[in-house]
Amino acid sequence: MPLTQDASIEVTALRWVPEGARGLVKDLRVRWALEEAGLDYRVRLVGGERPAGYSKDQAFNQVPCFKDGTVQIFESGAILQYIGEKTEALLPREPKARFRAIQWTYAAVSSIEPFVQFRALLNNVFADQPWAEPAKPTFDHFARMRLQQLSDRLSDKPWLEDDAFTIGDLMMVTVLRIADRSGQLADFPTLAAYVKRGQERPAFGRALNDQLAAFAANEPQPEGAAA
Amino acid sequence: MPLTQDASIEVTALRWVPEGARGLVKDLRVRWALEEAGLDYRVRLVGGERPAGYSKDQAFNQVPCFKDGTVQIFESGAILQYIGEKTEALLPREPKARFRAIQWTYAAVSSIEPFVQFRALLNNVFADQPWAEPAKPTFDHFARMRLQQLSDRLSDKPWLEDDAFTIGDLMMVTVLRIADRSGQLADFPTLAAYVKRGQERPAFGRALNDQLAAFAANEPQPEGAAA
Repeated sequence: MPLTQDASIEVTALRWVPEGARGLVKDLRVRWALEEAGLDYRVRLVGGERPAGYSKDQAFNQVPCFKDGTVQIFESGAILQYIGEKTEALLPREPKARFRAIQWTYAAVSSIEPFVQFRALLNNVFADQPWAEPAKPTFDHFARMRLQQLSDRLSDKPWLEDDAFTIGDLMMVTVLRIADRSGQLADFPTLAAYVKRGQERPAFGRALNDQLAAFAANEPQPEGAAA
Repeated sequence: MPLTQDASIEVTALRWVPEGARGLVKDLRVRWALEEAGLDYRVRLVGGERPAGYSKDQAFNQVPCFKDGTVQIFESGAILQYIGEKTEALLPREPKARFRAIQWTYAAVSSIEPFVQFRALLNNVFADQPWAEPAKPTFDHFARMRLQQLSDRLSDKPWLEDDAFTIGDLMMVTVLRIADRSGQLADFPTLAAYVKRGQERPAFGRALNDQLAAFAANEPQPEGAAA
């Protein structure tokens, strides 16, 4: 799907990232939603050195950006809502259910992600800092508190609002994958199973494969290799 | 307005918080939006010890919760959208402008707030931790990078999407107030002026006064004082 160059939807993704970031770059959220919705899209790959003027597309120089004939936006949450409005399967139209789904997208990026993301950074980006190791218990405390609260809320339901998979689950699963990658779900089997359920959806598999395919196709060559 | 006990909209707020948190508790976002929209509401105050079953209303035991005859939701971003849909003044109906406003609510809570919030925590909640001081340069670096990017984007515009104040600005101003309170806007006059513009709106003033009034009315009495 994402190789259709004349699709009206364009999603910006990174050309290549190191192994630790693969499968976590946030265009995955948008690719997944588009696959769930059955919407065709084309990909615009950008490198570590962003193109001139890129901050006009994405104020923080991140990916993804999204554009079609109607909107040009960034922030995966806003993009998921836009895609969700095109397909009731991801975002119910009935107000009560609709705003619950929207609620969970904000919960994912605001009430969960900052805590698990900073905890994960202590293991990788911040790992060489002398304060990283002593800071871990505090960050563990807050991340684990939020994960426990989420686990309690999910309980034995398949998705956050019972049987309906929505953009709220899609966002939450991708956020929990950050926690999972850095070992933070070891004591939260309910959340680990929820992530697994999300990852088993065929649309997720297609989205992940397409993100990874770009990295494989753009592997940096060793210096001195034939061009 | 918020004292009308028969209003159909209920917003949950905290009964009392220490001085450092006053004006930053997130029910302010919802109160402000309701004031902008001219919607009446009643307040449900909760204490540090939450009522039994409160996590059913708010999965992370925070405020605000929001309910009316139609929805029962938490996460200030979702609530702002719900209020925004009731009044075009805060959330344009035209899709291009609408999704830009939504985009900025996510940018506020996801791309700005975590960075300025954790930096602020190093000054207060985490201040006694031996790692807090050595961690400051790293957290400064990331917070300042995001603030600079936002400042560049805002530039000389009054609001994020030019002349129209939206829920995106409302959310961003409240997030930047966290940064401002902890001195992080000292080198960002563009953002400081933006916060000031937001705070000068009459609806903001009414919302802030109402949040503060609850704290003043529920000041803990010294032990041994007459009941």
